Amino acid sequence: MEKRTPVKELLRSTAFGTQVHVKGWVQTKRESKNVAFIALNDGSVVHHLQIVAEVEKFPEDVLKNITTGACIAVTGMLTESQGQGQKVEVQATAIEIYGTADAEKYPLQPKRHSLEFLREIAHLRPRTRTFGAVLRIRHAMAFAIHKYFNDRGFFYLHTPIITGSDAEGAGEMFRVTTLDPIDPPLNEFGTIDYKQDFFGKETNLTVSGQLEGELGAMALSLVYTFGPTFRAENSNTARHLAEFWMIEPEMAFYDLEDNMNLAEDFLKYLVQYALDHCIDDLEFLDNRQKEEEKNKKQEERSPMGLVEKLRFVVDNNFERLTYTEAVDILMKSKPAQKGQFVYPVSWGTDLQSEHERYLVEKHFKKPVILTNYPRQIKAFYMKQDEDGKTVRAMDVLFPGIGEIIGGSQREENYEKLYSRIQELKIHEESLWWYLETRKYGTAPHSGFGLGFERLILFITGMANIRDVIPFPRTPQNAEF
Amino acid sequence: MEKRTPVKELLRSTAFGTQVHVKGWVQTKRESKNVAFIALNDGSVVHHLQIVAEVEKFPEDVLKNITTGACIAVTGMLTESQGQGQKVEVQATAIEIYGTADAEKYPLQPKRHSLEFLREIAHLRPRTRTFGAVLRIRHAMAFAIHKYFNDRGFFYLHTPIITGSDAEGAGEMFRVTTLDPIDPPLNEFGTIDYKQDFFGKETNLTVSGQLEGELGAMALSLVYTFGPTFRAENSNTARHLAEFWMIEPEMAFYDLEDNMNLAEDFLKYLVQYALDHCIDDLEFLDNRQKEEEKNKKQEERSPMGLVEKLRFVVDNNFERLTYTEAVDILMKSKPAQKGQFVYPVSWGTDLQSEHERYLVEKHFKKPVILTNYPRQIKAFYMKQDEDGKTVRAMDVLFPGIGEIIGGSQREENYEKLYSRIQELKIHEESLWWYLETRKYGTAPHSGFGLGFERLILFITGMANIRDVIPFPRTPQNAEF
Repeated sequence: MEKRTPVKELLRSTAFGTQVHVKGWVQTKRESKNVAFIALNDGSVVHHLQIVAEVEKFPEDVLKNITTGACIAVTGMLTESQGQGQKVEVQATAIEIYGTADAEKYPLQPKRHSLEFLREIAHLRPRTRTFGAVLRIRHAMAFAIHKYFNDRGFFYLHTPIITGSDAEGAGEMFRVTTLDPIDPPLNEFGTIDYKQDFFGKETNLTVSGQLEGELGAMALSLVYTFGPTFRAENSNTARHLAEFWMIEPEMAFYDLEDNMNLAEDFLKYLVQYALDHCIDDLEFLDNRQKEEEKNKKQEERSPMGLVEKLRFVVDNNFERLTYTEAVDILMKSKPAQKGQFVYPVSWGTDLQSEHERYLVEKHFKKPVILTNYPRQIKAFYMKQDEDGKTVRAMDVLFPGIGEIIGGSQREENYEKLYSRIQELKIHEESLWWYLETRKYGTAPHSGFGLGFERLILFITGMANIRDVIPFPRTPQNAEF
Repeated sequence: MEKRTPVKELLRSTAFGTQVHVKGWVQTKRESKNVAFIALNDGSVVHHLQIVAEVEKFPEDVLKNITTGACIAVTGMLTESQGQGQKVEVQATAIEIYGTADAEKYPLQPKRHSLEFLREIAHLRPRTRTFGAVLRIRHAMAFAIHKYFNDRGFFYLHTPIITGSDAEGAGEMFRVTTLDPIDPPLNEFGTIDYKQDFFGKETNLTVSGQLEGELGAMALSLVYTFGPTFRAENSNTARHLAEFWMIEPEMAFYDLEDNMNLAEDFLKYLVQYALDHCIDDLEFLDNRQKEEEKNKKQEERSPMGLVEKLRFVVDNNFERLTYTEAVDILMKSKPAQKGQFVYPVSWGTDLQSEHERYLVEKHFKKPVILTNYPRQIKAFYMKQDEDGKTVRAMDVLFPGIGEIIGGSQREENYEKLYSRIQELKIHEESLWWYLETRKYGTAPHSGFGLGFERLILFITGMANIRDVIPFPRTPQNAEF
């Protein structure tokens, strides 16, 4: 086909007077007696390209069919724009209509749509400026993640999605099966005979690739996963998805401090990458956020603009303190004194979102890394501190998001790990391979998990996690 | 922790006389009366680093515990090696043992292990040179894929893993459910009441992200997916996995020829990237293959060495011809004349592996792209040719692999697509969103799918697909 030039390239071109081909979807059309102005977008950039078509040069039915949502191919001359709001435009000499969009039926007419409505037409919402911007940023962040690790000698490890071990115990799981749903085979005990299932045992969708990631780190030293993970929790909130993407680096020869250093450097790199590569999209979303918050009270508005907030993260060191120190701060805090926390704080309880947000948004006013949590509220594989009470865990807390990263140094001592597994009554037979890494050439190692959608929420300033993944999966919803 | 230098960096360093820290797993130890030679590897590179330890400088129990599989940290001086086979070595001044590996029990003793045995210890096999090489190449190819698309303005789109539409009909699927397996809720018709399942309907694991990819392309123009896909087929072969990774680019404004050009350029880029970035690993696997084939008859050996084969792909144009022309060649071929094909060839039948391999390996002796297949053997979404008999499909066939890429121009005409869906009795209600892209701003577009593990098979020269993914899922096997 005739090769097109992306709108992104044309908008920064100064090759005025040359003939160009551009293809895309019509955003709006304004028509006067003599001239039609068409705003065209092809998804390469948040801005539209203005096409100028002299009415007399085109058959009436062509211009009539150029409505919002139609797909067209334009040949014309690149010209310096005289109008406001754009530097270049294309004076059309030929227009081909690939596909019309009936103005009576096409749902994305040029007016303000609610995010709730757009979720119902997730097949079309990438055509809006907001979702175009979010998806381009999502792409840039995914690429930056791979680049960060590749440049530093990490290897991308594809850990399994279907798993036969439910060892992590990180939440409810989805069962994966090919058994007859109505009449499944039963064994002599009257329970399901999973020996007849596809994999010869009960299998579920993974909740984390960490344990397999550790196997990789015990051979390749530096690995990371980046893949889908699943939680069958019936949580209908703006922060939960049943299917989401996680990044989990795992490093041999890293202790907890190395782990924190990597996590902080990694997050700052990603934010800086977004500022360097996505500034058009970020500024659009920044303005969008300001517009959205206009009608809110001052105290409900974001304390910083989006771009300002991202710069702030890059420019400041994350505050590092222990869980014990954090509990101390929280117990002495005004909200605690005044009984304003919904959940009371005391040493040994898990911190709630309200506590994390107090520390990050009110007390320190910057990202915080909490370490050395009580062992009883953390997973079995975390390295036990000498005091017998805490483990070498770390959570990175971000403003507006709460926990964006959770990680730890791992327990590399076979006896300590095994006794913890016994203590928690974890089914050890399904973990024989994990335990063997501590028997044969064990090494100090650490790792963490970054929730990809939580990162995108932070970078884009969007409020609902369903709006930062193309096709969200939530309770009662697996459309598209 | 004390910062280490990766073995890969030390091996090309010439900073002789400086103190270095290196950490990794012992591959072998040779000990004479005065000196111990330790081959150390940390997964950063296929070659080992030689550590030289003067026996008298270390306590007896330290040296005794340095056995194959043990993990150690070495401090020492980088020295130009006098011995053969390496340029540098480290004269150890201090050795710390992180983890021992009981020589009586550790399964990876320094001897030849069968690939079948190594599959049973997939948690340890990344420590072998072969699997280290395969996993590093797998990483490099994943990164090259992201880089290729990112550099060309494509956006990475995460299409859903859990899907409520079984529209592609590409094979048997895995059911995803949280219903009680023994006593599932039934509806008034006596069948499963999926309204009570997690997503409110029957859901499965995706077999392809293509249909959702098309939605992305109809907004962002150039997108690609790279994610896990699933087939619940009971195929216990060296070419099938139940869980595998696919790359699926989808491009607005691309016709079939553009699609072929992209596929060929993409594959050559990947092969060239491997040659440029993984030559040590490739040469190791090349030698491994020659060693493996030593005992085979001449005609059963690979016609080219691994590196030679990869260079050949980069240097030659892929042969392009239609399915009809290919059938013609096959019907006139010697094996057809002599009745040596297991499956007879005639126009309208799907080509079997033996036919594809004849075309690629015997007739053209290079990669082949077949186009314009009969419509009845291809999927409903492929663009119909004017003759009413064929569709604008393309398959890229590789030596030793067969089909490595399958793709097509997509049917963008609503009426033609709809009538094909009716004809094939596909459940159209589950495809309303797909059909709407043809109603609103439809555009000519194309795409293809690359099986990631098939690519890795080709690049590494491994024979079994279970040996190019860290933890293979196959019938009766979901270990680790």
